[in-house]
Amino acid sequence: MLKTTIIGASGYTGAELALMVQKHPQLTLSGLYVSANSLDAGKSISDLHRKLAGLINEPVQPLKDIEQVAKNSDVVFLATAHEVSHDLAATFLHHGCQVFDLSGAFRVKKEGFYREFYGFEHNYENLLDISTYGLAEWNSAAIKQAQLIAVPGCYPTASQLAIKPLLEKGLVDELQWPVINATSGVSGAGRKASITNSFCEVSLQPYGVFNHRHQPEIASHLGRDVIFTPHLGNFKRGILATVTIKLAAGSTAEQVAEAFHSAYQESAAVRLLNNAMPSIQNVENTPFCDIGWKVQGEHVIVVSAIDNLLKGASSQAMQCLNIHYGFPELTALI
Amino acid sequence: MLKTTIIGASGYTGAELALMVQKHPQLTLSGLYVSANSLDAGKSISDLHRKLAGLINEPVQPLKDIEQVAKNSDVVFLATAHEVSHDLAATFLHHGCQVFDLSGAFRVKKEGFYREFYGFEHNYENLLDISTYGLAEWNSAAIKQAQLIAVPGCYPTASQLAIKPLLEKGLVDELQWPVINATSGVSGAGRKASITNSFCEVSLQPYGVFNHRHQPEIASHLGRDVIFTPHLGNFKRGILATVTIKLAAGSTAEQVAEAFHSAYQESAAVRLLNNAMPSIQNVENTPFCDIGWKVQGEHVIVVSAIDNLLKGASSQAMQCLNIHYGFPELTALI
Amino acid sequence: MLKTTIIGASGYTGAELALMVQKHPQLTLSGLYVSANSLDAGKSISDLHRKLAGLINEPVQPLKDIEQVAKNSDVVFLATAHEVSHDLAATFLHHGCQVFDLSGAFRVKKEGFYREFYGFEHNYENLLDISTYGLAEWNSAAIKQAQLIAVPGCYPTASQLAIKPLLEKGLVDELQWPVINATSGVSGAGRKASITNSFCEVSLQPYGVFNHRHQPEIASHLGRDVIFTPHLGNFKRGILATVTIKLAAGSTAEQVAEAFHSAYQESAAVRLLNNAMPSIQNVENTPFCDIGWKVQGEHVIVVSAIDNLLKGASSQAMQCLNIHYGFPELTALI
Amino acid sequence: MLKTTIIGASGYTGAELALMVQKHPQLTLSGLYVSANSLDAGKSISDLHRKLAGLINEPVQPLKDIEQVAKNSDVVFLATAHEVSHDLAATFLHHGCQVFDLSGAFRVKKEGFYREFYGFEHNYENLLDISTYGLAEWNSAAIKQAQLIAVPGCYPTASQLAIKPLLEKGLVDELQWPVINATSGVSGAGRKASITNSFCEVSLQPYGVFNHRHQPEIASHLGRDVIFTPHLGNFKRGILATVTIKLAAGSTAEQVAEAFHSAYQESAAVRLLNNAMPSIQNVENTPFCDIGWKVQGEHVIVVSAIDNLLKGASSQAMQCLNIHYGFPELTALI
Repeated sequence: MLKTTIIGASGYTGAELALMVQKHPQLTLSGLYVSANSLDAGKSISDLHRKLAGLINEPVQPLKDIEQVAKNSDVVFLATAHEVSHDLAATFLHHGCQVFDLSGAFRVKKEGFYREFYGFEHNYENLLDISTYGLAEWNSAAIKQAQLIAVPGCYPTASQLAIKPLLEKGLVDELQWPVINATSGVSGAGRKASITNSFCEVSLQPYGVFNHRHQPEIASHLGRDVIFTPHLGNFKRGILATVTIKLAAGSTAEQVAEAFHSAYQESAAVRLLNNAMPSIQNVENTPFCDIGWKVQGEHVIVVSAIDNLLKGASSQAMQCLNIHYGFPELTALI
Repeated sequence: MLKTTIIGASGYTGAELALMVQKHPQLTLSGLYVSANSLDAGKSISDLHRKLAGLINEPVQPLKDIEQVAKNSDVVFLATAHEVSHDLAATFLHHGCQVFDLSGAFRVKKEGFYREFYGFEHNYENLLDISTYGLAEWNSAAIKQAQLIAVPGCYPTASQLAIKPLLEKGLVDELQWPVINATSGVSGAGRKASITNSFCEVSLQPYGVFNHRHQPEIASHLGRDVIFTPHLGNFKRGILATVTIKLAAGSTAEQVAEAFHSAYQESAAVRLLNNAMPSIQNVENTPFCDIGWKVQGEHVIVVSAIDNLLKGASSQAMQCLNIHYGFPELTALI
Repeated sequence: MLKTTIIGASGYTGAELALMVQKHPQLTLSGLYVSANSLDAGKSISDLHRKLAGLINEPVQPLKDIEQVAKNSDVVFLATAHEVSHDLAATFLHHGCQVFDLSGAFRVKKEGFYREFYGFEHNYENLLDISTYGLAEWNSAAIKQAQLIAVPGCYPTASQLAIKPLLEKGLVDELQWPVINATSGVSGAGRKASITNSFCEVSLQPYGVFNHRHQPEIASHLGRDVIFTPHLGNFKRGILATVTIKLAAGSTAEQVAEAFHSAYQESAAVRLLNNAMPSIQNVENTPFCDIGWKVQGEHVIVVSAIDNLLKGASSQAMQCLNIHYGFPELTALI
Repeated sequence: MLKTTIIGASGYTGAELALMVQKHPQLTLSGLYVSANSLDAGKSISDLHRKLAGLINEPVQPLKDIEQVAKNSDVVFLATAHEVSHDLAATFLHHGCQVFDLSGAFRVKKEGFYREFYGFEHNYENLLDISTYGLAEWNSAAIKQAQLIAVPGCYPTASQLAIKPLLEKGLVDELQWPVINATSGVSGAGRKASITNSFCEVSLQPYGVFNHRHQPEIASHLGRDVIFTPHLGNFKRGILATVTIKLAAGSTAEQVAEAFHSAYQESAAVRLLNNAMPSIQNVENTPFCDIGWKVQGEHVIVVSAIDNLLKGASSQAMQCLNIHYGFPELTALI
């Protein structure tokens, strides 16, 4: 049994993780933590997230003695803000913990990236060097080995799972940038009070046009420029990404279909839709990424859908854990 | 043309009022104000409420020299917090302004009420004495005369319009308390950031059970105790109130129908539904109160629906203005 | 392993049941059926309910040779229309199947009830006699013995779980009828096309006032008259019931609390909220009934919330199965 | 006063038109009609659309003697199905009526278009020749003259208003196709019962990928190919279109801004957002098209939002009427 600790248990992704750890036959929950000065410290996790009542009632403790927590943990999930993950990871790694970071702190190895897009200086270049990007379907060999897994963001997961099969097979035109239009449920903004996320103000609209930090995350890991336009949708959970791609000259609909099937035929968490398109509803509360596509002439539309809190965060983190330790990939997830 | 000033123009009800003043053929907008230290001061009202762009673009000014504003106004709408209305009303009245207060500051004449339910001491008993409760359909004679109109809250409007016709005709059992179950859209909480009103947290649920301040407002104006249980609904606007009443012995369905028809046959803003029940959708963005009812044995269920920001606030304030000055009752409202 | 068959697998409750059977360690799925002339016959259940893809892909077969299906089943769930359950149950019982009926066909033993409220003559008085009402928390001894379990409707489950603890302890005034106001998500109407349930028409509103067939179901099983007013809410799943009760003279808040705690202290599927009130969101996709209450003077407000498709239908059926066979009560449900 | 008749008054767009005609100082309502065998015939329009109660209560009559209706009308709005408009228009035109058709029957002059995309043979090539496309901001000179106005579809309005300013100024790359991703509220499907539009099934998803008939409508009127991917959103009204365009070489952000400002500086119904992006909420229940844009490198993202039932249908029809007769463009619309 692996002693598993969750830092940042007061947020939506932390709560999902806590449930998964509880359900996992090889994990035992060694602690739920929030930052030491959080008003949530000391409460039960089911007081913070009442839907957990009767399922898990552990207290959420203030994170004070990090060394001690690290010594008592085999596995650590960091469901914390980017800067907090940045600051905490080294200590847990030093004590030999296996670390799954759901923040953006270790995802992109690019000079100046954190300064520009996250507003802080990155002080752990060595950790960036050893971190492995946890896009489960495409990086399992590295995930098996790595001690620090940087779990991808929600938009990057939906986008890359849609694009990579075609890119890997050379089916994407080299000049024209893929166009990603994606819409996320409001939980993507986390559990916090703001006018923007207040019920009366939420309404379908784009945001972060041409300056969202998930664009460079996607582009960097694809090795290709893309146009990425995120939208806020009037629903709680889920992301739908509609990707428009110009095909490389001579590519056929058969090649496109073959690319998706060969990429994902053994992927437990990807569901390919034949002659149908994904919808948010069908992936809500599931660890799946649904993918549909259609070719016409020189273009293909690929549409992917995930639950942003699960395949876009918590369940992908757990999927990485399952891959790392050799457990069945969807253990504790379905 | 009456020079009309709106204090508290950054909120939802203030924005609705601004549009109405603009549409009203006998009113001219003399100023939109927010409190002097508001971050919204200086912005255009259409920057705060983008749906107003192209319709009204007046600046929202900081309220500094109240005397000067009062001198320059014939009519003042106070769409302000309860304490703010409490503090401001006297000055405007002193300068002869006609005041319509949308807050709770002058609605209930009962010793200790403001201390207990609003958390402040009321210092203007004289104004409480002269204030008139602006329940338009039931108080028009007084509204015509009064200088200070205390416009009812949203729940009290929906509740009283449903109950008063039966009470006035002696059709309500004297022992059993009417049971009001009401559900409000989230805008009832105003335009502000809070976890409770964040999109991801809103879900149908009761609140303020047995201690909501609208209960004593309703009971005081009905002259009868009631049980009032408010709920938060997952929609932006509107209130639906379902009222269960035990009829006085011997009352008939015909008497009930007659009570509603005689109460509202000349009421422009009440729509009686025959053999149908109200829904939120049909009153959204309208100044109407829809009322349906059904009798069985000794009980009657009365259901009323209003737009909480309109008939539950702004349009009722304007309706009072129209009554006060003798304009057609729905001027600027349909 | 019990061979388990689901009749009516194309609806929402049938789909939920299929998932549960799949997860249950003591059940094996022996067949999914729809009526022989359904257009859905022959399709995979995951084509009808795409969210099930990757989880369960069994075909939905036309129900032709009922005898044969009965012979091949240990357990039968009837997730069918009332008349269909009425017609089918006898055959399955005759062949020794354990039958859990989610329809209303065997719930109420009262002369003329089916004619008046369901529009058909009931031809199986003998089955009504032997059927057991599957309100899991209150009827487990009988559920353990019975071959035919009539699983309660969604409103009756939420209502009775709220009222029975007080009634059993004699805390409810004998004269005044409890007032139940309940709001259901749209899935309560089943999976079908109608103007009323079309997205653009749904908006909070009452329906079936004083003539909904769940009123006599509730009253009959409580042995007390109640006023029951159902509402349609603008959400997909869930029911919230707000019950206003006049207490018997001399009842105290402590007695009320004690009544709830003693009734449910060992109930796996009931979560009592202390100093809080239920919300739909917290019970969505769970088998739980959340109950909160508050006493003031002679009245108590009790509020209960369930997922209408789960505790209000499928998970309660499975809970009854677990009780009947002595499995842990929430097996396959959490 | 122009005698104004609405055919198809039972639908959402017909109801909106009826309200507008009622508000319009130069129009008088000469009749509301539905097809002769409609079940709605004979009812009041406010029984079909209860939100209209107290505002307009005219009966909806069966359309039997078309000639007679035509003789009694100066203006006819056809808010009817495509085939019905196709069949009716000639008679009204023959009698000298001014016709505004909200269907697709006269929008696209292209051999084989109606066969391929609407499933019927077009028998009125002469009417296609004389019809004028009612894209109000771009076609006002022709609208002033024409007797038959084919009001654009909802997606084409949002899309073309976003793209045309850049195309007209030569700022759009000639090779790369503009990519339109648009999401519509459910009312776009009309007022009818269907599983797809039932409340429980609606969830953000694409549909009609590469084969929606609005693609050729847009392409034909722009004179340029586009990729158009429509989505169904979980809201009642509104369309948001996000358009990604590669700019012609050498184009600057200043030229883009100038193109929008010069195109729409005198347009009453277009609101250009500076440094902001549109949202559905801000255009709901308004006749406005909100447009925002942002340039980066060689690309521009243009986002437009409209109310699909208003600027995407009824208010644009009325706007065309106002243009045709020389009334202020937003008469009866704000």
